[in-house]
Amino acid sequence: MSAPVPPTVSTTHRLGLDPIATPDRLLLGPGPSNAHPTVLQALARTPIGHLDPLYVELMGEVQELLRYTWQTDNRLTIPMSGTGSAAMEATLANTIEPGDKVLVAVKGYFGHRLVDMAGRYRAEVVTIERPWGEAFSLQEIEEALITHRPTILAIVHAETSTGVLQPMEGIGELCRLHDCLLLLDTVTSLGAVPLFLDDWKVDLAYSCSQKGLSCPPGLGPFTMGPRAEAKMMARQDKVPNWYLDVTLLNQYWGSDRVYHHTAPVNMNFGMREALRLLAEEGLENAWARHRRNAEALWSGLESLGLELHVPEELRLPTLTTVRIPEGVDGKAFSLHLLDRHGIEVGGGLGALAGKVWRIGLMGYNSTPENVERLLNLFATELPAFRPSAPVAAAVG
Amino acid sequence: MSAPVPPTVSTTHRLGLDPIATPDRLLLGPGPSNAHPTVLQALARTPIGHLDPLYVELMGEVQELLRYTWQTDNRLTIPMSGTGSAAMEATLANTIEPGDKVLVAVKGYFGHRLVDMAGRYRAEVVTIERPWGEAFSLQEIEEALITHRPTILAIVHAETSTGVLQPMEGIGELCRLHDCLLLLDTVTSLGAVPLFLDDWKVDLAYSCSQKGLSCPPGLGPFTMGPRAEAKMMARQDKVPNWYLDVTLLNQYWGSDRVYHHTAPVNMNFGMREALRLLAEEGLENAWARHRRNAEALWSGLESLGLELHVPEELRLPTLTTVRIPEGVDGKAFSLHLLDRHGIEVGGGLGALAGKVWRIGLMGYNSTPENVERLLNLFATELPAFRPSAPVAAAVG
Repeated sequence: MSAPVPPTVSTTHRLGLDPIATPDRLLLGPGPSNAHPTVLQALARTPIGHLDPLYVELMGEVQELLRYTWQTDNRLTIPMSGTGSAAMEATLANTIEPGDKVLVAVKGYFGHRLVDMAGRYRAEVVTIERPWGEAFSLQEIEEALITHRPTILAIVHAETSTGVLQPMEGIGELCRLHDCLLLLDTVTSLGAVPLFLDDWKVDLAYSCSQKGLSCPPGLGPFTMGPRAEAKMMARQDKVPNWYLDVTLLNQYWGSDRVYHHTAPVNMNFGMREALRLLAEEGLENAWARHRRNAEALWSGLESLGLELHVPEELRLPTLTTVRIPEGVDGKAFSLHLLDRHGIEVGGGLGALAGKVWRIGLMGYNSTPENVERLLNLFATELPAFRPSAPVAAAVG
Repeated sequence: MSAPVPPTVSTTHRLGLDPIATPDRLLLGPGPSNAHPTVLQALARTPIGHLDPLYVELMGEVQELLRYTWQTDNRLTIPMSGTGSAAMEATLANTIEPGDKVLVAVKGYFGHRLVDMAGRYRAEVVTIERPWGEAFSLQEIEEALITHRPTILAIVHAETSTGVLQPMEGIGELCRLHDCLLLLDTVTSLGAVPLFLDDWKVDLAYSCSQKGLSCPPGLGPFTMGPRAEAKMMARQDKVPNWYLDVTLLNQYWGSDRVYHHTAPVNMNFGMREALRLLAEEGLENAWARHRRNAEALWSGLESLGLELHVPEELRLPTLTTVRIPEGVDGKAFSLHLLDRHGIEVGGGLGALAGKVWRIGLMGYNSTPENVERLLNLFATELPAFRPSAPVAAAVG
């Protein structure tokens, strides 16, 4: 073979950069939340091979601790090698066959995402809707199950876009009664809010790494119970998504350890430490801590005259939606918090865009100190953003 | 609403673990390879928000440096939030419409993976094949393009399963002539082996983070040229994969910055540093370093009497397949290297299972010191694994 003359290297895109110098933010938005320092240290460990016996052992630990955190015995419990949205898609991709009817209970942004995804897998998608800030009653769900007779009911436990916690009592029983799989989004509840997957008869669930688990984003915990597994195993065609195919992933994460893809080993180092720390604290303690700090935030905000968007009985301890007062430029205030104080607070999404701030107290960040720091800033610096009273804070 | 009695927390899966204590391995297998220490430090930085102005700036840097590394001007150049396999799937998912004919040139394991994936997107998949250890000639490719008239030709530049580097001269011109998109797997070549995407008229390519880029696994660089983009934009239906949908990802990575999914920010910190270090070294220097160290490995192995599986003109500088000598238990020797010396060397996959070791010298690991260390171990410790000569090393 004659040696061809290679082209010359172009330097058009060769940026000359300084070493990375991102600041230490306090992330009190809808996520990512700050990671535990121990978790960050784990990320920086030397990688090991994805088929190394020591890595295989670590995989087993991650699976087992995810089962504890979700309160499930599901064998098929693994972290997907992508973010929470990948795990969301995995629940649908593996179980939907073309023409299956999927009922999505939509009460915020992430319900709409489930609708979009399910449609791509050629499900017949039907929806029931509640306004952004409300939850579904058991009766509404039962009526929809009877009307639509779906194969899968998908619902969001903790709606990150609205701050609503969907009450779960009785939904799983209804799904069994009407021969339907129950798919639950636990992105903003896992590790932070009481969650009993098996007691609630949930067949499919997913979450993320960067909220209640105190790990950076990049992994999507996924779990599938026996009823969903039976549906997947009975499908006529291959799962129409290779990367998220649980029939293949099960050969890697199960006892066979057949190579599927090169696992994100460092992210899993972090996940292992995050779950270890949570098990050390104990789920009940972590749940109680989130509740306690959220309540302190709520009463502090209300005593500053601010209105919370969600009624107390449906309020999510991890994510609080605060109505932006009349005349205040909400975005300007959150940019001020970010630029001057290094604190991130979220804005509204979809129907709530421009109407609320979203304040997250999740995992490592759910502390009395963070609540106090934020309340102080709302008390002292928000008044300058109010149209009428540029100096004194309005107290309700 | 009456407060229901919550179930009690089960401790069945509550493992009590010690802090993580993985060892510092030297990873000289097919990947992951060791990450640069500076990259590992970047992973441990405090996360920032995925919509933070500083993160948006970092995204632009990563995109630009990926363009440099691939030698492409493609606007749609981004790291997918998954491993290399996710980026592989993204190239197919976005461009295949049901019934499209996809020609896969199969000469190893990863060619077969492309076949499997393309089928899931309902392509009509046709293949041409070469034995594991060989490459395709331009004539074979042209004949197949004429016979099959495919919409997409998919081929692997650097076959990690065999150690073969596919010569690329002329293939892109043929694809243009026959109105076909050229899709190239650069998983084991990006950053380490000469690669000129635009000169070669490649329309779609993907790679991984954990080889030539010296970053841990978890991100999948992806790029799409204007011809592939035109095909994607003309499709009748939505991309049948939400997570990897480039029409949506483009709104986040492009100038709109519309939220799609929460980016794995810490992995992107690492990617930014990995690409910065590569640009600092300069592509030509990195390519020359890989070539130099591979040649030292090859001559060292041959002088120990070992046979290399791939003829020199097709040999991949990043991954060398070494034939396991007659009578030697290849797996026992690699386990010995791992357990006693903390060095990982890969085994064969598929048609080469049990027949070869796979030795990687990639990115940060491509150094004369690593070559010398490994050659010393082959010289001094392999003889004990040979059936006939338990002490003295056979010198060729």
